[in-house]
Amino acid sequence: MFPNGLVLLAEPMDYVRTAAFNFLIPAGFAYDSAATPGTSNLLSGMISRGAGPFDNKQLMLEMDALGLDREESVGVLHTRIWGATLSRNLLASLELYSHVVLRPHLPEPELPAIQALALQDIEALEDDPKGKAMLELRRLHLPAPLGNDRRGTPESIEAHNVSILKAFHRRHFRPNATILSVAGNITWEPLVEKVGLLFGDWSPQPEAAITLTPAPRGKAHLDKETQQTQIGLAFDSIPVVDKDYFNAMGAVNVLSGGMSSRLFTEVREKRGLCYSVFASYQGMKDRGSVLAYAGTTNERAQETLDQTLIELRRIEEGVELEEVQRVQAGLKSSLIMQEESTSARAGAIASDWYYYGRVRTLDEVQAEVNALTPERIVDYCRRHPLKDGTLVTMGPKALNS
Amino acid sequence: MFPNGLVLLAEPMDYVRTAAFNFLIPAGFAYDSAATPGTSNLLSGMISRGAGPFDNKQLMLEMDALGLDREESVGVLHTRIWGATLSRNLLASLELYSHVVLRPHLPEPELPAIQALALQDIEALEDDPKGKAMLELRRLHLPAPLGNDRRGTPESIEAHNVSILKAFHRRHFRPNATILSVAGNITWEPLVEKVGLLFGDWSPQPEAAITLTPAPRGKAHLDKETQQTQIGLAFDSIPVVDKDYFNAMGAVNVLSGGMSSRLFTEVREKRGLCYSVFASYQGMKDRGSVLAYAGTTNERAQETLDQTLIELRRIEEGVELEEVQRVQAGLKSSLIMQEESTSARAGAIASDWYYYGRVRTLDEVQAEVNALTPERIVDYCRRHPLKDGTLVTMGPKALNS
Repeated sequence: MFPNGLVLLAEPMDYVRTAAFNFLIPAGFAYDSAATPGTSNLLSGMISRGAGPFDNKQLMLEMDALGLDREESVGVLHTRIWGATLSRNLLASLELYSHVVLRPHLPEPELPAIQALALQDIEALEDDPKGKAMLELRRLHLPAPLGNDRRGTPESIEAHNVSILKAFHRRHFRPNATILSVAGNITWEPLVEKVGLLFGDWSPQPEAAITLTPAPRGKAHLDKETQQTQIGLAFDSIPVVDKDYFNAMGAVNVLSGGMSSRLFTEVREKRGLCYSVFASYQGMKDRGSVLAYAGTTNERAQETLDQTLIELRRIEEGVELEEVQRVQAGLKSSLIMQEESTSARAGAIASDWYYYGRVRTLDEVQAEVNALTPERIVDYCRRHPLKDGTLVTMGPKALNS
Repeated sequence: MFPNGLVLLAEPMDYVRTAAFNFLIPAGFAYDSAATPGTSNLLSGMISRGAGPFDNKQLMLEMDALGLDREESVGVLHTRIWGATLSRNLLASLELYSHVVLRPHLPEPELPAIQALALQDIEALEDDPKGKAMLELRRLHLPAPLGNDRRGTPESIEAHNVSILKAFHRRHFRPNATILSVAGNITWEPLVEKVGLLFGDWSPQPEAAITLTPAPRGKAHLDKETQQTQIGLAFDSIPVVDKDYFNAMGAVNVLSGGMSSRLFTEVREKRGLCYSVFASYQGMKDRGSVLAYAGTTNERAQETLDQTLIELRRIEEGVELEEVQRVQAGLKSSLIMQEESTSARAGAIASDWYYYGRVRTLDEVQAEVNALTPERIVDYCRRHPLKDGTLVTMGPKALNS
């Protein structure tokens, strides 16, 4: 950690020739002002349009010349800036990104194009029934602004100007609470030295508060003449940092990890009710949810919903040993696969630091997975039943639940 | 290569703990009978529903217990069966897949669920404007059956029975022309021995012919009340095995690789015309295409099409050195990233064998990339101009071209 609060994490992977990096900056859409939602998202589009000594075109050329694979995205609490490149280009890439993060131009003439793209992103949702239904589910289930749409609204996008973006950047792009993680073929000393030089004089800002408005919850149907009916369900779960985290993951994976999982076999394989069905755990530091999704024909939508709810509830009645063994095999296999990807590791160590203030070892995580038993999972499910959920359906006809 | 024609390729990556494998079987949708399109796709859904000594449920459990990440998919010429797992589970996984590939049960009672899923997959296309437009583009641009939809039609799916699937499996799942590629932490001798035992008595079948019907080509508009207009363009290009392959890749990457590529900067960044725009090269042994796509607002659709066509044609007028350097950096960076992924390598060595009858070295491919110059790319573009294209638009209003 540097004196200004910036955390640098690095995982050396000596056998690769590339490196991935990941800035987790506390500038997610939850910090958008309620009057102008969409700021953080517009900023993530604008931020690399010229920075430091480079205008827009020069900066893109510099980045492409380093063979950078890159992406900026906005989540609830964080703006994430990700890149991957050859190890030998890592320090030069971080230098470019120091301009982007600290000294973006946010040029006035570029704003209309960014706004036009943001408006299209909103319009395109109308042609994406699944995306739209799941967004509505989050909006109903989570307190605002956590359940907001990062895109904002057409009105709020039009209402933006460069000053709003600059003010948001000044306020929320801050070293304290930012995590820069790097994984790949790297050497610690030159990396620390370079990051210190590049980001050392970045000034801290005070923590920003988020005021929550209670979630609407309940059931909603979006009437739309689609060929398929979309079904989204959300339930409260535990936070990521809860001691029951692995039990919650175990339960979700009994339902939805792998081809022999319950939702897959009972809803998709046996009955052919829907092409896509899943449940997933989505956690934050102070809360968590289980989201379930099914997309199905309009005729079989009610049956799909009924069967999905049966499976979500049946887990409290018992779990087989072979189901737990399957879940353990799947989780361990994906842990080890993740160990071999620089991008996955850069993401995982940043996430570990954010949630736990430290990086967990593979052995430690494997031990938690090994400790799963049917009894522990069922006990957990009884204490945290999937009930009182929020339901969103979208299609030509409302469903009963 | 085994006496029955099966090719086994392996790339050892000693520093990983996982392995990926890839069966490329000459059973793509181009081999479906014209009377019952969709056979290969239905078969890929049925094939793992019980095989050898295992019924459907047992087989899923066995696979999940090995921590297998897996996928079956159907392309124009090949059915691809892919899996990744821990290295120590590789031989056991191949043993399971020997049952799947050679002795699938294709059980009658499972067919209705598979048909229901296939019908839903067709219906879901109606809610996926981009997918539908690009499918129509392929149908118009390529000769049938190469431009067919792997899904078939609702009528042809209903018309299927298990005998059709069994006959297709017997005829097209054959060792000659099948490539099994493996990459990861593997040892060659036990692998060859095991694959020989598992697949040695698989009987060859004669080559199957494909009869082509000339492509319709031309321009088409699909009228649909969508929020966004979809634009797809297709042009003839060279085959993968052509000596000009890297020049063609260079040209497409000037247009569409990276943030400073022409389509991205001119159509998306400067004008904000569309959220998504790209060109890509799609090659086969005996032909190739360049496909371009843009999704945009209905109001700005005409301008987007015009601007995209301008960029596609302007490349003949000249290419800058810095554009070529950018393309080279991007291609080399992704080559090296690919070297670090077991799945990417398993796919790449199979593809190399299919096209060239050998596996190319990284140095060889890098030398080709290094040899790109503006002159070579422009010369290529003049010899293979992007003209006389097929155009598909979808939205509330037809466009002019």
